[in-house]
Amino acid sequence: MKTLTVELADRRYPVHIGRGLLAGAGGCLRECLPGRRAVVVTDDVVAPLYLDALLRALASPPAFDTVVIEIAHGEEHKNLATFERICTRMLECGIGRDGAVVALGGGVVGDLAGFAAAAYQRGVAFAQVPTTLLAQVDSAVGGKTGVNHALGKNMIGAFHQPCCVVSDLDTLDTLPARHYTAGLAEVVKYGLILDASFFDWCGRNLDALLARDEQALTFAIHRSCQIKAAVVADDELERSGRRALLNLGHTFAHAIETGLGHGRWLHGEAVGCGLVLAARLSARLGLMDGAEARRVEGVVGRLGLPVEKPAALDAAAMLQRMSLDKKNLGGRTRLVLMRGPGEAFVSDDTDPAEVTAVLN
Amino acid sequence: MKTLTVELADRRYPVHIGRGLLAGAGGCLRECLPGRRAVVVTDDVVAPLYLDALLRALASPPAFDTVVIEIAHGEEHKNLATFERICTRMLECGIGRDGAVVALGGGVVGDLAGFAAAAYQRGVAFAQVPTTLLAQVDSAVGGKTGVNHALGKNMIGAFHQPCCVVSDLDTLDTLPARHYTAGLAEVVKYGLILDASFFDWCGRNLDALLARDEQALTFAIHRSCQIKAAVVADDELERSGRRALLNLGHTFAHAIETGLGHGRWLHGEAVGCGLVLAARLSARLGLMDGAEARRVEGVVGRLGLPVEKPAALDAAAMLQRMSLDKKNLGGRTRLVLMRGPGEAFVSDDTDPAEVTAVLN
Repeated sequence: MKTLTVELADRRYPVHIGRGLLAGAGGCLRECLPGRRAVVVTDDVVAPLYLDALLRALASPPAFDTVVIEIAHGEEHKNLATFERICTRMLECGIGRDGAVVALGGGVVGDLAGFAAAAYQRGVAFAQVPTTLLAQVDSAVGGKTGVNHALGKNMIGAFHQPCCVVSDLDTLDTLPARHYTAGLAEVVKYGLILDASFFDWCGRNLDALLARDEQALTFAIHRSCQIKAAVVADDELERSGRRALLNLGHTFAHAIETGLGHGRWLHGEAVGCGLVLAARLSARLGLMDGAEARRVEGVVGRLGLPVEKPAALDAAAMLQRMSLDKKNLGGRTRLVLMRGPGEAFVSDDTDPAEVTAVLN
Repeated sequence: MKTLTVELADRRYPVHIGRGLLAGAGGCLRECLPGRRAVVVTDDVVAPLYLDALLRALASPPAFDTVVIEIAHGEEHKNLATFERICTRMLECGIGRDGAVVALGGGVVGDLAGFAAAAYQRGVAFAQVPTTLLAQVDSAVGGKTGVNHALGKNMIGAFHQPCCVVSDLDTLDTLPARHYTAGLAEVVKYGLILDASFFDWCGRNLDALLARDEQALTFAIHRSCQIKAAVVADDELERSGRRALLNLGHTFAHAIETGLGHGRWLHGEAVGCGLVLAARLSARLGLMDGAEARRVEGVVGRLGLPVEKPAALDAAAMLQRMSLDKKNLGGRTRLVLMRGPGEAFVSDDTDPAEVTAVLN
């Protein structure tokens, strides 16, 4: 097991990464949660696979008094209605402020459960047990929680940090190929943001990653979490602009996801495409070498992720949705662009005509 | 104009109290809000009275670009559905993270608008322009925001501090007597919590307060805000138990409000009754002199506030609702009791049978 620590101004929390961690999760959770009542939020795909193991871990003495809330899987359920259902069930069970929420699942479960933990009685403790690659490398670390709105992704939510993250690599064994590949998009993203040598490593190890080679996968998850933890430590609440770098490709991705309807493309698929579009735009603006942009497209394409926006979305509609992105300030569309792999930066003054040209 | 400052660990903000402040509110808001887009949330009772004045103030150069969201008045609309409506309208108007929410109204408007500001795009800036006595002395100061759930009051929300509070005493001139008196319950509460001489002063000045005598009213609002600001500065997130003192009478009050259906009794009416019940329970437990408890009942009664729980609620149902209170920990019902006026404390081990006896 490897353990990283996310260091914040007034708190720190561990991210445990390794095989076989679910069985021992009771110990980690007892150490970090304030009380002995735990609300496990999971979905109908993950529950049959891993819920029993987690409940056994929570039942080891001194046992947690446990409530399970199972939601329907999929991004289309990450909304206020499901959030309300979770809160209602918690109230029905008489969960108090010393109760805690434990998210067992992928990014949708983590974001929903985290927002419920943030808002229930104005905040209870929270732990993440991510079971998808995307959640282990990205969404479970850093404290962003929330739900989608028909008009935009993650538009309602809170910054609410977990008390700990338990990433059991065993849970990835059952992850369908499409979801696994989608998670790799976020891995590639970390290299592109600020570690050119990690991006190079990804390019050289695509086959090993796709084959879920244990050594390659462990390194990729650990390095991704290290990069994310460092950026979050610098700018927990996305104020300085540094944290916004983590959204490389995401302005395009959110416009795709919202435009198609949440859940049509997996988030990681949209991010993969977004990375390619951000690279092409950077090259078009003369910021990045054209050959480097094509290298980004090559890596994303060889992962089997989409490298073109959905045909069903036209450029004007996508641009309109991008103008609603949370990073925008003063009416200008903020985008994360690159001067090269590992050199992402936030740009406030991209000409919309250039974005349209890249989308067409 | 008097100005208090709420001092928090990492921020401070002013509370301005005085006559004629609405006309100059543009200056205060320009100073404290980050951008130039303001979403004014108000209700259908307050809008015809004070919205024009606030919009004029916001239009003074350099003008805010302003959006108005009007909600239906009343506690029964303080729910997730109204919260979602506010978020939807903000998205439709393309409000970004540098936009701000300005609450113009009473406690319901402030709590709803504040929670929308807390959760919209994971948090935008927020200012309070309270127009009821209850909001000016209590709900607009201190950062508690949220909505009700059918199973409990304020069960979903956030701590989200305003950037400033502008309390224009002129707005109280149009406040109906019932709402005005309800606000006085919170004033009396501050004396009972930790300022016996302020409680004595309230008792001696009931007629002046009920007549809305300017000098008495200004003193009462100012002293109430001082006490609240001091307690909030000590325990912003209600962790040490100190802030829980501000909930004197509120565990009873919330059980009444939820039991009757939100909006049947005004919050301040339920608080008045709750203060009497807390005093009676304290006397029954031998903590407080019986004569002092009767003095509390006398003050609340002379304000015209209820001193008995609603006949429609039976003691067992109220006790059950009290067991869901947010202050509770480890399954025990936490109550704020008194050793005398000005000497409130948090009690974790009150015998439910004693509570039932007081309710019957």
